[in-house]
Amino acid sequence: MKPQATDKASPAAGVLTIDRLCIHQVTLMQCNFQQSIECLARHGVTKTAVWKDKLDDVGVSAALRILNDCDVEVVSIIAGGFFTGATAAERAKAYDRNREMLDQAHRLGAKSMVTITGGLAAHDSDLQTARSRVPEGLAALLPLAEQSGVQLALEPLHPMVCGSRSVLSTLREANDVLDALGSPAELGIAIDSYALWWEPDLQSEIERAGPRIENLHVSDWLLQTSDTRLDRGMPGDGQINNREIRSWVEATGFNGPAEVEIFSAEKWWKKPPDEVVAKIVETSAQHL
Amino acid sequence: MKPQATDKASPAAGVLTIDRLCIHQVTLMQCNFQQSIECLARHGVTKTAVWKDKLDDVGVSAALRILNDCDVEVVSIIAGGFFTGATAAERAKAYDRNREMLDQAHRLGAKSMVTITGGLAAHDSDLQTARSRVPEGLAALLPLAEQSGVQLALEPLHPMVCGSRSVLSTLREANDVLDALGSPAELGIAIDSYALWWEPDLQSEIERAGPRIENLHVSDWLLQTSDTRLDRGMPGDGQINNREIRSWVEATGFNGPAEVEIFSAEKWWKKPPDEVVAKIVETSAQHL
Repeated sequence: MKPQATDKASPAAGVLTIDRLCIHQVTLMQCNFQQSIECLARHGVTKTAVWKDKLDDVGVSAALRILNDCDVEVVSIIAGGFFTGATAAERAKAYDRNREMLDQAHRLGAKSMVTITGGLAAHDSDLQTARSRVPEGLAALLPLAEQSGVQLALEPLHPMVCGSRSVLSTLREANDVLDALGSPAELGIAIDSYALWWEPDLQSEIERAGPRIENLHVSDWLLQTSDTRLDRGMPGDGQINNREIRSWVEATGFNGPAEVEIFSAEKWWKKPPDEVVAKIVETSAQHL
Repeated sequence: MKPQATDKASPAAGVLTIDRLCIHQVTLMQCNFQQSIECLARHGVTKTAVWKDKLDDVGVSAALRILNDCDVEVVSIIAGGFFTGATAAERAKAYDRNREMLDQAHRLGAKSMVTITGGLAAHDSDLQTARSRVPEGLAALLPLAEQSGVQLALEPLHPMVCGSRSVLSTLREANDVLDALGSPAELGIAIDSYALWWEPDLQSEIERAGPRIENLHVSDWLLQTSDTRLDRGMPGDGQINNREIRSWVEATGFNGPAEVEIFSAEKWWKKPPDEVVAKIVETSAQHL
């Protein structure tokens, strides 16, 4: 509960220029692969993170043609990992999927694969066992990451999806996992403001993560959140101080893009994609 | 991510006998004050926590008559606190409400007032300022608590209600707050399994809380949670190992009741109260 010393009136982070704005494909779930990339290009957005399902619909070769035609660069592929399967067969399947994704990421020129841990099986309450599978799952992927030249970006998710998506809920735990593994060069961290904005020691844990930060995902927390996964807000519409969080991340030396990732089944996924992208470009100067 | 040494097959906590079962009035939101207490009595449940709104509907004198007639004891009154109001006027109003509640709790013979911090105003993103109001708000209540003989039981709530209900999201922070205030005798902690089950170092933070633990609230986390506040599950229907958490709490010397608190607008609040209480009594032997 120590107040953290920050001057919110004049945050250290400067205005985000459009060349540092990345918009995730999942923010435009209403589009297919090609539509989403073309839409970004129309608004001068030059960076995206690829959503594996959309990629698989077209295949890597066609995806590369579309990206090249539109001059859009791939920052990451989303989402790999899923180490907590209850059976060896499930975990082997996840390993194979990760191998495939790392190869796809390599071919697309992506810098990282966003890596989430997975949750618990329904009615399972053995959190400790599920958590113990995370370091071993990551360790098994390290040689594949090294071989592909693609970083693993471990992403803690909000505690409200602990049971369903990620038994890793805080940046502190992510830092602990990396420390325990000896901080291998192939393993970094993805920071998502939506997942972590509430974390008590967020600023100091960001400092601790330091050069291990690979990605910065941003969206907003809506006061009236109607779904534990698919009701994220547009930056500026909620309670997260994204500008401040970005200033903390950049204080570590990070100079990558701010990546807008909005899961929004009932609002933004129902709007015309050009309206969504125009809104993000407009709002990013003020709120990112 | 250190696995915690527990033997889940034979937890230290014994079967919960009905004299240690408490059911919160809010679990029976479909009832008025009298109906809820009479329903508990019909099933041999002798402990409750009073919900202030229901209490105010009848007044303390009538409430006392009902409780005495049914031989039901009040463990706590819920929920006081709310220190994070943006204006001095809002905070003064909360102080007056707390004063009234502590008096009500005293007259009902309740041991504690469950105390939550409050969240942020809509579109406010100044989490540090809101958090800084918690210790000062608690400190202001200590003399009133001492005078009334009612403990303040500080309750961290799940991070998903950080913006709306509680800027205090972990037991670690609650322990930090109590440490910072010098652990005054009038101030304890309410542990709610629903709020804290995901917390990385929960077992060691429970150990650290030790004799400061006043209350143990239990319910379950549903894999498909449809509401950030009002969709809690019946113990056994979700992913929380309540038996294990109770064993950790009792290892500190705690021998109070397990208090079933289920906010469930779409399921349990729509059922006949006798069905709900019978189900809790039945399930408590196995899952609490």
